[in-house]
Amino acid sequence: MKNDLLIKAAKGENINRYPVWIMRQAGRILPEYRAVRSSVKGFKELVKNPELCCDVTLQPVDILDVDAAIIFSDILVVPEAMGLDYEMIEQKGPWFEKTIRSEKDFELLSSKVDIEDRLGYVLEAISLTKKELNDRVPLIGFAGAPWTIFCYMIEGKGSKTFSESRKMLYTNRELAHKLLDRITNVTIDYLKAQIAHGADLVQVFDSWAGILSRQQYAEFCIPYLEKICSAISDTPVTIFSKGAILSLPDLAKLNCNTLGLDWNMEIEGVRKLVGESKTLQGNLDPCVLYSDRSAIESETKKLLNSFKSTRHIVNLGHGIYPDTDFEKVKIFINTIKSYEIK
Amino acid sequence: MKNDLLIKAAKGENINRYPVWIMRQAGRILPEYRAVRSSVKGFKELVKNPELCCDVTLQPVDILDVDAAIIFSDILVVPEAMGLDYEMIEQKGPWFEKTIRSEKDFELLSSKVDIEDRLGYVLEAISLTKKELNDRVPLIGFAGAPWTIFCYMIEGKGSKTFSESRKMLYTNRELAHKLLDRITNVTIDYLKAQIAHGADLVQVFDSWAGILSRQQYAEFCIPYLEKICSAISDTPVTIFSKGAILSLPDLAKLNCNTLGLDWNMEIEGVRKLVGESKTLQGNLDPCVLYSDRSAIESETKKLLNSFKSTRHIVNLGHGIYPDTDFEKVKIFINTIKSYEIK
Repeated sequence: MKNDLLIKAAKGENINRYPVWIMRQAGRILPEYRAVRSSVKGFKELVKNPELCCDVTLQPVDILDVDAAIIFSDILVVPEAMGLDYEMIEQKGPWFEKTIRSEKDFELLSSKVDIEDRLGYVLEAISLTKKELNDRVPLIGFAGAPWTIFCYMIEGKGSKTFSESRKMLYTNRELAHKLLDRITNVTIDYLKAQIAHGADLVQVFDSWAGILSRQQYAEFCIPYLEKICSAISDTPVTIFSKGAILSLPDLAKLNCNTLGLDWNMEIEGVRKLVGESKTLQGNLDPCVLYSDRSAIESETKKLLNSFKSTRHIVNLGHGIYPDTDFEKVKIFINTIKSYEIK
Repeated sequence: MKNDLLIKAAKGENINRYPVWIMRQAGRILPEYRAVRSSVKGFKELVKNPELCCDVTLQPVDILDVDAAIIFSDILVVPEAMGLDYEMIEQKGPWFEKTIRSEKDFELLSSKVDIEDRLGYVLEAISLTKKELNDRVPLIGFAGAPWTIFCYMIEGKGSKTFSESRKMLYTNRELAHKLLDRITNVTIDYLKAQIAHGADLVQVFDSWAGILSRQQYAEFCIPYLEKICSAISDTPVTIFSKGAILSLPDLAKLNCNTLGLDWNMEIEGVRKLVGESKTLQGNLDPCVLYSDRSAIESETKKLLNSFKSTRHIVNLGHGIYPDTDFEKVKIFINTIKSYEIK
């Protein structure tokens, strides 16, 4: 591989500069993405088209010169593969016709998901992208964390409180665990298939981690994340639990290579928890990219100066906001690339 | 006052049982509220009608037998009084036609708000309610925290990220502080007027505290909260900064009587920070009220048993969810009332 900085950083090997990629780098910030997006009817047509997924996955590598590609897809392909179709409604977000609220709903889910059959389009996109990348940079695969996928399967849409999902943790703990375990098993098969098709690193996104107490996160999330981490060997795993500030001591014990940090998490404190056993990924506030050049440069340098270890992958602390000027993103990336590790 | 437990608990005076009230107790959980609500066209018609506000404020006192009334109103009456009208759109939330994005927008705001003139309908509702309550229980007044009001004035609607609001903290810090200071001054006048009209305690809601880093919260929120706390004497003040887990050490230093805790905040840790200098309010997960009787009783007792001080006001850790069965709320309240402080 020509540029394997990301893999080296994830494994804690020696690096001479920090690798950088950006959550949601393939997306609305790029005019080239918007052109592809407007050539199809809906977001899902894009997700289900391997050639187009490959194209938009490569765009930020070509345009922004990031140190990794991340396959263009959606975490909700997993609940869909399990039997819950969804629509992506413009300006509103995902919407599921069926949801899981009872044992009976659960029984209707596929008990075993044939990944090649149900998610072959993602695997094909990965194979294609891997070929087109031609070993320039590593390719990242991903999935939603069991808890976050559970939230969508119960709620059927986005929510400020996810109170239906949290309700089940009190009213039917057994069903909650059964569903979380089912999602976990599918996710493991899915991530393994992504790796078999060419993913060099996989990231698990727990977008709704922040709505649970430490105790609930320890019961309903950590064991399933651990099961995923332990099932995947030889390929680095990143766990990004957004908002799980109280659970950082528990996340620090996971058998993963890298922890993703959101923009509010404090690097110094997390480093104390993990020591040199893990790489930390993140965590510039995406709002910094609304600033002018000198502010972006100084905030980025402040972040880099705060690193007391080489075990870092630079990223934002949240998916980049769609109205960000991609020229500002280049300033961020160039500041990192020209920063020498002392 | 017949039942002044809330005031005593807020001031750290001796109590023989913990007082309890519920955030959003006057609202959709009560059929009696829904009857009043459906008698008017929109939510704002209700908010602007002092007689109806009085009626729905009294409902939970009569029906649920809580230890306090909280005036039925909306935090967004303050930006409206400052010059930004809003609509409350069913199923969607608030929407402002004008927003503050520049100095020019700021200049259009009223430089001084005549509270009696612009918010007289709230004050009238308070006077009426105070009279009707006839000193059965204390009446709580409230306002949004400057940061949360700022978020709505910049964004113009709800948001998952409030990226426009956070953007200003980087791109126009001076304007951000000017606007926060303006909101703070209006809020102080407003809370003082509420007290003059009969509010026995006031609570400041910082609903969007959780989206800022500790550093940003220290710069853009804490000083304005402190200004409010210091401006109000003789009346207990409660600060509820939802999600501000990282900022608890800073909140602990505020000159207020009570800190509200959300359902994820850990009482033991916060008690260590505040010692006996403050009352803590909260913080049962509102989802517990979806459980059956025995689970509600045991989770409530678990919460009460965790108190190592009498300086507690019991509440939920978030506004009660609208689909909660009010009979379940009674179980929660009765469990607290029959619990003896040892």
